[in-house]
Amino acid sequence: MAASTSLTLSHAALSRSAVPRHGSSTTTSPAVAAVQQSTLSIPTFSGLKSTVTSSSRAPTRRQVSATRRRVIANAAVETLEKTDTALVEKSINTIRFLAIDAVEKANSGHPGLPMGCAPMGHILYDEIMRYNPKNPYWFNRDRFVLSAGHGCMLQYALLHLAGYDAVKEEDLKQFRQWGSKTPGHPENFETPGVEVTTGPLGQGIANAVGLALAEKHLAARYNKPDAEIVDHYTYCILGDGCQMEGISNEACSLAGHWGLGKLIAFYDDNHISIDGDTEIAFTENVDKRFEALGWHIIWVKNGNTGYDEIRDAIKEAKTVTDKPTLIKVTTTIGFGSPNKANSYSVHGAALGAKEVDATRQNLGWPYEPFHVPDEVKKHWSRHTPDGAALEAEWNAKFAAYESKYPEDAAELKSIVTGVFPAGWEKALPTYTPETPGDATRNLSQTMLNALAPVLPGLIGGSADLASSNMTLMKMFGDFQKATPEERNVRFGVREHGMGAICNGIALHSPGFVPYCATFFVFTDYMRGAMRISALSEAGVIYVMTHDSIGLGEDGPTHQPIEHLASFRAMPNILMFRPADGNETAGAYKVAVESRKRPSILALSRQKLPNLPGTSIEGTAKGGYTITDNSTGNKPDVILVATGSELEIAVKASEELKKEGKTVRVVSFVSWELFDEQSDEYKESVLPSGVTARVSIEAGTTFGWGKIVGSKGKAIGIDKWGSSAPAGKIYKEYGITVEAVVAAAKQVS
Amino acid sequence: MAASTSLTLSHAALSRSAVPRHGSSTTTSPAVAAVQQSTLSIPTFSGLKSTVTSSSRAPTRRQVSATRRRVIANAAVETLEKTDTALVEKSINTIRFLAIDAVEKANSGHPGLPMGCAPMGHILYDEIMRYNPKNPYWFNRDRFVLSAGHGCMLQYALLHLAGYDAVKEEDLKQFRQWGSKTPGHPENFETPGVEVTTGPLGQGIANAVGLALAEKHLAARYNKPDAEIVDHYTYCILGDGCQMEGISNEACSLAGHWGLGKLIAFYDDNHISIDGDTEIAFTENVDKRFEALGWHIIWVKNGNTGYDEIRDAIKEAKTVTDKPTLIKVTTTIGFGSPNKANSYSVHGAALGAKEVDATRQNLGWPYEPFHVPDEVKKHWSRHTPDGAALEAEWNAKFAAYESKYPEDAAELKSIVTGVFPAGWEKALPTYTPETPGDATRNLSQTMLNALAPVLPGLIGGSADLASSNMTLMKMFGDFQKATPEERNVRFGVREHGMGAICNGIALHSPGFVPYCATFFVFTDYMRGAMRISALSEAGVIYVMTHDSIGLGEDGPTHQPIEHLASFRAMPNILMFRPADGNETAGAYKVAVESRKRPSILALSRQKLPNLPGTSIEGTAKGGYTITDNSTGNKPDVILVATGSELEIAVKASEELKKEGKTVRVVSFVSWELFDEQSDEYKESVLPSGVTARVSIEAGTTFGWGKIVGSKGKAIGIDKWGSSAPAGKIYKEYGITVEAVVAAAKQVS
Repeated sequence: MAASTSLTLSHAALSRSAVPRHGSSTTTSPAVAAVQQSTLSIPTFSGLKSTVTSSSRAPTRRQVSATRRRVIANAAVETLEKTDTALVEKSINTIRFLAIDAVEKANSGHPGLPMGCAPMGHILYDEIMRYNPKNPYWFNRDRFVLSAGHGCMLQYALLHLAGYDAVKEEDLKQFRQWGSKTPGHPENFETPGVEVTTGPLGQGIANAVGLALAEKHLAARYNKPDAEIVDHYTYCILGDGCQMEGISNEACSLAGHWGLGKLIAFYDDNHISIDGDTEIAFTENVDKRFEALGWHIIWVKNGNTGYDEIRDAIKEAKTVTDKPTLIKVTTTIGFGSPNKANSYSVHGAALGAKEVDATRQNLGWPYEPFHVPDEVKKHWSRHTPDGAALEAEWNAKFAAYESKYPEDAAELKSIVTGVFPAGWEKALPTYTPETPGDATRNLSQTMLNALAPVLPGLIGGSADLASSNMTLMKMFGDFQKATPEERNVRFGVREHGMGAICNGIALHSPGFVPYCATFFVFTDYMRGAMRISALSEAGVIYVMTHDSIGLGEDGPTHQPIEHLASFRAMPNILMFRPADGNETAGAYKVAVESRKRPSILALSRQKLPNLPGTSIEGTAKGGYTITDNSTGNKPDVILVATGSELEIAVKASEELKKEGKTVRVVSFVSWELFDEQSDEYKESVLPSGVTARVSIEAGTTFGWGKIVGSKGKAIGIDKWGSSAPAGKIYKEYGITVEAVVAAAKQVS
Repeated sequence: MAASTSLTLSHAALSRSAVPRHGSSTTTSPAVAAVQQSTLSIPTFSGLKSTVTSSSRAPTRRQVSATRRRVIANAAVETLEKTDTALVEKSINTIRFLAIDAVEKANSGHPGLPMGCAPMGHILYDEIMRYNPKNPYWFNRDRFVLSAGHGCMLQYALLHLAGYDAVKEEDLKQFRQWGSKTPGHPENFETPGVEVTTGPLGQGIANAVGLALAEKHLAARYNKPDAEIVDHYTYCILGDGCQMEGISNEACSLAGHWGLGKLIAFYDDNHISIDGDTEIAFTENVDKRFEALGWHIIWVKNGNTGYDEIRDAIKEAKTVTDKPTLIKVTTTIGFGSPNKANSYSVHGAALGAKEVDATRQNLGWPYEPFHVPDEVKKHWSRHTPDGAALEAEWNAKFAAYESKYPEDAAELKSIVTGVFPAGWEKALPTYTPETPGDATRNLSQTMLNALAPVLPGLIGGSADLASSNMTLMKMFGDFQKATPEERNVRFGVREHGMGAICNGIALHSPGFVPYCATFFVFTDYMRGAMRISALSEAGVIYVMTHDSIGLGEDGPTHQPIEHLASFRAMPNILMFRPADGNETAGAYKVAVESRKRPSILALSRQKLPNLPGTSIEGTAKGGYTITDNSTGNKPDVILVATGSELEIAVKASEELKKEGKTVRVVSFVSWELFDEQSDEYKESVLPSGVTARVSIEAGTTFGWGKIVGSKGKAIGIDKWGSSAPAGKIYKEYGITVEAVVAAAKQVS
């Protein structure tokens, strides 16, 4: 979907950004100036799928009446005014039955959670949260994450009532059907209004930590005493399943450490998981654990009908600004179902016609399936104008901010819109063969430090390996509770949480470029989050060092073998293995540009030379010839390699040339990018007529069969690594110039 | 290494098992009888790498003098007699300097942890633990796990002092060198005396939970009021890094839930991780979190020199029998190094010659590198005879147990030795095309329930998906705190912990056959543990259901695409995708037999027919022809498929045959097993002359290029799945009979 009208800054705000700048005595950096220049035209950012139509576009400030503004101002300070309880109840039952009916029609899905969580869902979306249903991407919206993603009908029902265009009645009727906007779990890339992709348990709460981190960081960096331009909450509902997952403990430990006061998580404490009562596997004291993690805890004992309890809990949570809050809400799964409530049978299957009828009886619900009573419809209808007004208010605020703090505004705008300062990529250094060699992990640090000043949204860190992964941006301090404006994030030894937090940062605003790091082998610890990066189009950069047996003495537990192949097999993720300085720069260039596709950089621990023929441009094509002494696209043999083995291929080619062979060396730095090139280009690099091919890579040969063909030879490692100095392992494993020369002679 | 003498039951105990059985009025099951029959000969189990030589074999009971027996009995009740403190200190410094010297010589490694943890290490191995250094596989030994595996020089130093043959002085000098017994992290498959493979943080503590579960289970199942035949502790040292990992919270939550009273974990609380002070990322209250998880907590404030504090803590821990204990031991990382102690610089690098000298000065250590003072050597020398005596005592106890409880003894012996009851595999059912079709997940449950009565060591469960993964053994109850003798384990939604716990169970005793289950896509959550299964030769069976888009409505977050390829690329793990009943039986047969190689079974949610030509025998070969109407090994086209797509291939072959083609259909159920067949066999299935090949699998085509060749075609899914009914997705994604027929015509 084209999205030139879909920016989170409205047109008005963007065009106002050109007013003369006052009150700033600091010099304007080139990066900031570039963003400022771009603000007169509407930048197109394809990362946003908007539901904004011309008719529903946010009204300008003038269009919002004075009365309306007062109402909104009240909403903004969240006076938890009690609406008529009968109406609230009706609204809550509407949510329940939309979920029941959709699951029943699909004969597939999870009615239990929506039925139990409808009260907190109603209160959040109707009374608490600030959002604009007609622009789901409005920057300063409150974020909501349904970590217990299987209960997605709760969220779809709420989006529907709130007026989001993505979820019309017909969409609810298409729940879990081909091509619908209401898939089986919440997917941000399908349904505007859904912030992140959940379903795999624990991911959502960790995403929420990332969203709250992003807010705290931006607020600290850009808010002024006279202008709170970044100011939203992050809400999350998580269940027993999420609580059991290690990833949630990792992320929540960090949330406590960072003091993310605007993160408010609702723990749907219903004592039921798929296998039955949580007593069979989950008897820990969750409250106490969260206290230990540094959270504020509130217990809502009656989550089923204690609406005021829920409201009071939220009110209390907002008064605690130095800690995240866990509101434990004790609910009955499948509330309202006379025969299935409070049992695992209501968790993940349709109630069945008979029990649906019984539930209608029990809750006094006389309506047809999918019916929204008029008074409920009317009650919720205010969110469309109110939301538009909220956005317009904020746009006006931003305009004022911009005129007073133009440099900050320009940076923030880059983060908000995803439009990078023009020419940012010129910051990347290039290399010649004369440049002294270096480990690609060190070159990666050079790139990060070159990019940090020109990319306002670059933020990240390592899972306790900053000094090994080389991920520190030297001009910044640590993002910590007391210094949230800083950009080096210390994740501790929490790989899975780290990945999911970065997904949250990436999906908070399109101009964020989050990166995170560990040893390449430990992608095994965070693969769940990396897959969600790829699926949910979160352009996280994974800086993965120590990428082969070349790490040496740490041994097989630390030496990746199968990892390159395992990611090459994954959709929508770029797997890079750069060989030197130019290729590391090229990988970063593509990775930064790829805001809807995550990238993995596999980087060496050991020093590598800068090779002749490598380039940023070549790297962007995924595979390219770096040396060739043949003519007519017909070398005697083609040597294909990646990363640290490209040097070996080059040396082998020199040996073979001495013996009179014509040899091409191809760097195959990213298979995915090469696959996307034209057939002509591919033929120019790997001519089908040349079947004499040898590949070399210090990892599994799995997958190389397709490249080298049945007449070629793949040199690699199809067994575990070993603990010894790197040179020794390379030699013992036959990852050598001699092996390539011998194989080349054999196949050509 | 051949290991016919390496059994954890000594020869004497084995031969005594044939004495007439008394006191048992129950009938002998065929399974038990089979084990009993096998006890007259010495079973060979290649899973054990023994260091037992004929000269060091455990003495028989008679050889142990009465005095010795009394001493051992005292040791067994662990009167924590204080040895001369000066000698203890000298022993502790010996451990420190062995670590310092080995790291220095290798110029690689982690001296900080061994220097800080030497006191608790000394007390454990010298004063507390019961083991036999000359038979590291003695069944009833206490288990020790160094979860902070980077500190492996601590364990190597202790094994060396204790008299384990694997770690002689020359082995210490070969630390981290090619082919040594002292690799960079502890590896059970390299170093007898090391129980599990650690290094990837958090795995070890989860393995320890598995070891303690195994002990509690066997004790409950086999101990009698008059015979405590299973009775050992599991000790573990874990650091801050392990504590931050989600896997440790998962496993420790289960340990608390199960009340594993004989698990005693030492938390090396040194406040330093690689990136510096733990203040930067780890400020949670660990004690309180563990209390919340149901553990007993003790704090040793002076772990550096408070030897009695450590001793008292262990004593206290043993009095708490209904909870695991965490002993938080506050230590100084790199204790003794005047300039580097208490800093990250001592964590992961050699001290350097100058600082080594300064540390020698500081701790008053006048000796040459690798020197063990005579009095220390003498002091530790008693562990060889004492350990032999402990084992002999136990063997005698077992002999008495066996004569009184022959059936229980036979079962336990199967678990202890890894020798399964003869003919166990006959329990597996076979199928004909007339047998009604079923989902392979249901067939998997049939296999588990068929095997449970004949495999005493079969134990396992699911991560809260028992009713979806179909993993319940219906004749057993749940392994719980109050019913630890049962064999269905409820892991909760804790995939990573589950995998690592199963590794611990598998490595506790060679006859355990642990299995665990979740949806196939969630292997992403537990890949870290699965890789350790493969590396550490732990024969866990991974029951992974919902193996493709065939699961339907749950959508892309739940639909595996890249997972088959990602495991085919991993060394030493069998990836099965059975197509029907016979293949599911065949996969189980191989999986059960593979005690040193884990297996993954990818199983369908949807119903599949029993196909003509499938077999247990064919499955064991990995790839085999199920139908072919050609002669002379020259079909017009070969169709290759796995799992649910084998049916599609068969139907396509029928279409093609109608059109006069000769067609072979090959089931490619396990690529790894096919790779291991002879060239002749492989040629007989996939003749090199037939290049017209079409593969079909509802997953990535990555890797299939090698099978179908450049002239063939791979049908698969190289993008994300979708939320819709399964049939619709298959059709939309082109995983159809029509697509196979079309491709076959195209290539042939």
